Amino acid sequence: MSETLDLKVPSPAQMASLNAALKTAAAEVERTLDEVLPTPRGLHARAAEAMRYAIYAGGKRLRPFLTLHSAAVFDAPKARALRVAAAIEALHTYSLVHDDLPCMDDDDLRRGQPTTHKKFDEATAVLAGDGLLTLAFGILADPATHPSGEVRAQLVALLAAAAGSEGMIGGQMIDMLAPERNYGADDVILLQALKTGALFEFACEAGAIVAEAGDDDRKRLRDYAQAFGLAFQIADDLIDVLGAAEDAGKAVGKDQEQGKATLVSLYGIDRARSEAARLAQQAVDALAPYGSVADDLRALPFFLLDRPA
Amino acid sequence: MSETLDLKVPSPAQMASLNAALKTAAAEVERTLDEVLPTPRGLHARAAEAMRYAIYAGGKRLRPFLTLHSAAVFDAPKARALRVAAAIEALHTYSLVHDDLPCMDDDDLRRGQPTTHKKFDEATAVLAGDGLLTLAFGILADPATHPSGEVRAQLVALLAAAAGSEGMIGGQMIDMLAPERNYGADDVILLQALKTGALFEFACEAGAIVAEAGDDDRKRLRDYAQAFGLAFQIADDLIDVLGAAEDAGKAVGKDQEQGKATLVSLYGIDRARSEAARLAQQAVDALAPYGSVADDLRALPFFLLDRPA
Repeated sequence: MSETLDLKVPSPAQMASLNAALKTAAAEVERTLDEVLPTPRGLHARAAEAMRYAIYAGGKRLRPFLTLHSAAVFDAPKARALRVAAAIEALHTYSLVHDDLPCMDDDDLRRGQPTTHKKFDEATAVLAGDGLLTLAFGILADPATHPSGEVRAQLVALLAAAAGSEGMIGGQMIDMLAPERNYGADDVILLQALKTGALFEFACEAGAIVAEAGDDDRKRLRDYAQAFGLAFQIADDLIDVLGAAEDAGKAVGKDQEQGKATLVSLYGIDRARSEAARLAQQAVDALAPYGSVADDLRALPFFLLDRPA
Repeated sequence: MSETLDLKVPSPAQMASLNAALKTAAAEVERTLDEVLPTPRGLHARAAEAMRYAIYAGGKRLRPFLTLHSAAVFDAPKARALRVAAAIEALHTYSLVHDDLPCMDDDDLRRGQPTTHKKFDEATAVLAGDGLLTLAFGILADPATHPSGEVRAQLVALLAAAAGSEGMIGGQMIDMLAPERNYGADDVILLQALKTGALFEFACEAGAIVAEAGDDDRKRLRDYAQAFGLAFQIADDLIDVLGAAEDAGKAVGKDQEQGKATLVSLYGIDRARSEAARLAQQAVDALAPYGSVADDLRALPFFLLDRPA
């Protein structure tokens, strides 16, 4: 059941380059995460074990990729960008661990592996999530991330805004209330802008910040991320509707079963696809001023839409 | 059943001064919290409502008191110290909300009020805790807290260490594992140093940091906090054993029922009391270089030990 979307997709060479770049970024950020994650030891070793389990259960490391490639557009030192990318992946992983809890989405599998509360227990999963959230801020504030305290404090403040109750947490709150409400398209767009969009925006803007890029450049990266984030979410919802469980690495058809509106359920599959394509193009357009250093960022939205679905 | 400990307690005048200072500090930090907490609005209003509920369910605001009075020793601008104090109370409150969850300590009451998951629901309580934790870092990193990015980043880094998996979260992990382990006095001291001690230390040291005090002063405040924290924990455990539920505002005898060792269960009541008194004196001694500006900090450990128990 492999289908492709009718898009101006990048060339095969560009897709091959992106594929390699995704693998490289994932390997690099996993090495950095290994350095910054706590080593399991002492009476509380179980907390660090669960944090490492959650991080190394897999994933495309999309947000770190966005940070690394945004930073590369402005020639930021790689070691600094990697630490920011690791912080963002720690924060993203915390959100998955807490969202999977029985009182939230109650998921037993994530990326084909037992979720953290299934592998350990609920209390340990709550603590591991708390630990990853706290670690994300600790990494950003560490002088090893950037010599300027202003840059580090700015990264912390923006991540706190993106991840907080007016960002990701607010989005998850809206999502939890979905079954008892009747959300329209605008509500779903807000939900996704908060739940997943805010961290995509931070991931891209943080690359520009750690490179000390100017306000115009920061805005372009935010614009790219905003369009990319919505396209990503539609692609993800399409997989939930159309995909096989093996592809998704988790239960499919779950949004519908839980009574959750998505842009796919509201627009229908065809309109959702053309909307995703439009957003992918919009993301590419935001990067117009940059040369080939931004090619992998340009190819990324098409790569996601081109997945088997 | 009011009893007092056999201590060199401060004079009645000093105790009256401390009582007034505690009330003033609580009122001031509650006003600051009102400014920094999100306003409930939009589809996700419930998250902000639960965060505010958890914060305003009461409490002695001991940690903010420690920060404000530590900062006052070095004459820090009050507005800055208040923001740091508010961040610490937000972080403390997150830890209470998560610790009360059914998968953790499963408490229905806190300070005589329904816990956040009883008042709202578990998912909302997890999110409110996450929101308060995230907010704490956002407050510290905000330029309104201190003009120097270095100071702000340092506060964030130290709070992340105190609150993280090698601090508070590690302590709660050790506590959760207590029923299946046989902890001795050293283990319980480690548990408490992580679970409650680390944040007391940060609360005091942060006051010195926001005042840009030197390393020697920071160390003295840490030493005070370390001794104070252990004395506080013993006083709290004594209430659990001896107190009436009305005094504690929560279920008593719970540690024993849950098979959790405390210094009181390991030492016995008399030795625990004399140990607490020794620690209170040690806390006072750490403040020897400072004048009357530190008097309320000096009286505090005795105030706690002198509570009806």
